[in-house]
Amino acid sequence: MTDKVSRFLRDVMPATPCLVVDVDRVAENYGRLKAALPLAQIYYAVKANPAEPILGRLVGLGSSFDAASWEEVQACLRAGAEPSAISFGNTVKKESAIKAAYEAGVRMFAFDSEAELKKLARSAPGAKVYCRILVGNVGAEWPLSKKFGCEVEMAKELMVQANEMGLDAFGISFHVGSQQTRTAAYEAAIAKVGLLFTDLKTAGVNVRMINLGGGYPVRYRTEVPEIGEIGDVIMGAMVEAFGNALPEMVIEPGRFMVGDAGVLSSEVVLVSRKEKDDPVRWVYLDIGRFGGLAETEGEAIKYAFRTPHDGGEEGPVTIAGPTCDSTDTLYEKSNYRLPLALDCGDRVELLATGAYVTTYASQAFNGFTPLAEHYI
Amino acid sequence: MTDKVSRFLRDVMPATPCLVVDVDRVAENYGRLKAALPLAQIYYAVKANPAEPILGRLVGLGSSFDAASWEEVQACLRAGAEPSAISFGNTVKKESAIKAAYEAGVRMFAFDSEAELKKLARSAPGAKVYCRILVGNVGAEWPLSKKFGCEVEMAKELMVQANEMGLDAFGISFHVGSQQTRTAAYEAAIAKVGLLFTDLKTAGVNVRMINLGGGYPVRYRTEVPEIGEIGDVIMGAMVEAFGNALPEMVIEPGRFMVGDAGVLSSEVVLVSRKEKDDPVRWVYLDIGRFGGLAETEGEAIKYAFRTPHDGGEEGPVTIAGPTCDSTDTLYEKSNYRLPLALDCGDRVELLATGAYVTTYASQAFNGFTPLAEHYI
Repeated sequence: MTDKVSRFLRDVMPATPCLVVDVDRVAENYGRLKAALPLAQIYYAVKANPAEPILGRLVGLGSSFDAASWEEVQACLRAGAEPSAISFGNTVKKESAIKAAYEAGVRMFAFDSEAELKKLARSAPGAKVYCRILVGNVGAEWPLSKKFGCEVEMAKELMVQANEMGLDAFGISFHVGSQQTRTAAYEAAIAKVGLLFTDLKTAGVNVRMINLGGGYPVRYRTEVPEIGEIGDVIMGAMVEAFGNALPEMVIEPGRFMVGDAGVLSSEVVLVSRKEKDDPVRWVYLDIGRFGGLAETEGEAIKYAFRTPHDGGEEGPVTIAGPTCDSTDTLYEKSNYRLPLALDCGDRVELLATGAYVTTYASQAFNGFTPLAEHYI
Repeated sequence: MTDKVSRFLRDVMPATPCLVVDVDRVAENYGRLKAALPLAQIYYAVKANPAEPILGRLVGLGSSFDAASWEEVQACLRAGAEPSAISFGNTVKKESAIKAAYEAGVRMFAFDSEAELKKLARSAPGAKVYCRILVGNVGAEWPLSKKFGCEVEMAKELMVQANEMGLDAFGISFHVGSQQTRTAAYEAAIAKVGLLFTDLKTAGVNVRMINLGGGYPVRYRTEVPEIGEIGDVIMGAMVEAFGNALPEMVIEPGRFMVGDAGVLSSEVVLVSRKEKDDPVRWVYLDIGRFGGLAETEGEAIKYAFRTPHDGGEEGPVTIAGPTCDSTDTLYEKSNYRLPLALDCGDRVELLATGAYVTTYASQAFNGFTPLAEHYI
């Protein structure tokens, strides 16, 4: 938690649940990433947190933007981004969304299928397009299955087709999975793209961009590799795969940019036991999986907690949200322990919650309104 | 799909994604439930769908209401419900919410812990309270873990305490799990409550209400027991447990009341394959898990689909939502098959989606706005 957030929580005591984001920390993270990968152009993954103060600050720093929808493209434009700095990175788009973005000046689009390519040829003629391929996600705490990307053989055919359709077959992208904690995932993926580049050039395709996606990890409960180390591994693999003829590099950080800039402030609604001598207490907060903490599904992302009683004696807990839904349980199997003194009405903080929280919040599940947001 | 919904979709062609609910069907379901369990007072579980047209219609029919939050209590009051017809059924409540509901005239509250009982004694003095106990959930497609309820021994102590604190220790509740497809779950739970009633009366507690919760199933892809059959089993178990001295009976249907009254209309955004000869197509809709279909988590609730090509040749599919999140995948392992002719732009309907959809929708994940709602 940054000093600025800490002071804000102490002095303002905002109503809970709420997220407080230190926008200066976002700028610092941008700088750290730029230093770790100076050759890469940063396309901020807007979906991680699309708040205007964040987008506006990043526009000022010269960032580009990875948008998942026409609505996110519009948010970037409203924040002052040039259309040329926006990539429409979702491989699944309504043709009306492609058309709207193209008419607004966006010229870079992702795809992973023939049907999407046809939409792009019709509604974004001449645009730069990049094909997403499937790569391994081992080591990612929030892995990506096969939903996005296609196999390399198909990517090769589609890139050739893109050219024939009058599109600019610009690049190849992949994603190693979000909160990726193993640098080897990048090495394997880059090597795969290197081979594909050779094949594509042989086939006469002027491919010249590699999009390394996002996934750069944030520290939650356990240590993760430093971004400098990840940058070194990536550049090593790039040189290995491409030698001196390095293609343009694009990265799409989301979590890394905003995760540790945010702190969620919540209130303990109830502490109880299911039977008298049960060692495990149930701690119910006023925010849960449907209030924004969607990434605790399967206990995937394990946030760290601060309480007013830290340092006192602790005991095992199950931590749950406030709704009448049993799946609205955050942690039951991850060995969380909280102070025995914790009681109804206490405020607890969930650290590093700046990414993938606000927009996930359900509009009104059980009648609860979404969390408040403070950008400072 | 009712004729009224079918006509509305055909004639109005509302923009997708949207939910269309036939409010007459809700009234019919109320009548069916009343016929199946004439001795039970129906408390509609507002969280299933809190839309004003539904609440208003149920007020007119004489229904009572089970509210999960102060916001839901307010929604019932706005729809014309008497405060005496509202039960505040969440066992996890901020004391400020208890106080607000009490001041608005609500006099019936759930609890399952000593800490909650203390809040009720302070902020809802003299109110009727009922203790939720843990029971088995085998057979439920959306089971409830141990998040709500306490063990019977503790319930007994808490009910005695409630009396001592000046509350009216009114009843005992349980929940067999949502979309419960086995009637035996009710029999076991009612027998458990019967024994507890005997113990409580011996201890001098004037307990006189049994709240059987909800969980009454809706037909999705497979057959479920008829409500008449469930009613017969419940009444048999009640007579077995209580003889002639039947306590007041409360039921809290949510899904049963509104589920089959609603149809979700969606558009196919993309149909693709991950490699050329892959037999499995990926079908991406413009609504997914974060757009409201939260109950497809773990492929728990399996909705039935209608497409414009039904009757044509089918093939295996994975069905996913439109967001850049791999967990936004509805069905990958449940052997869904859809017509081979299905294409981008086709409209597909998801049947029996009137419950637990609208309020779950994320406020803006990936920039997408929540689905539209039409009550006809």
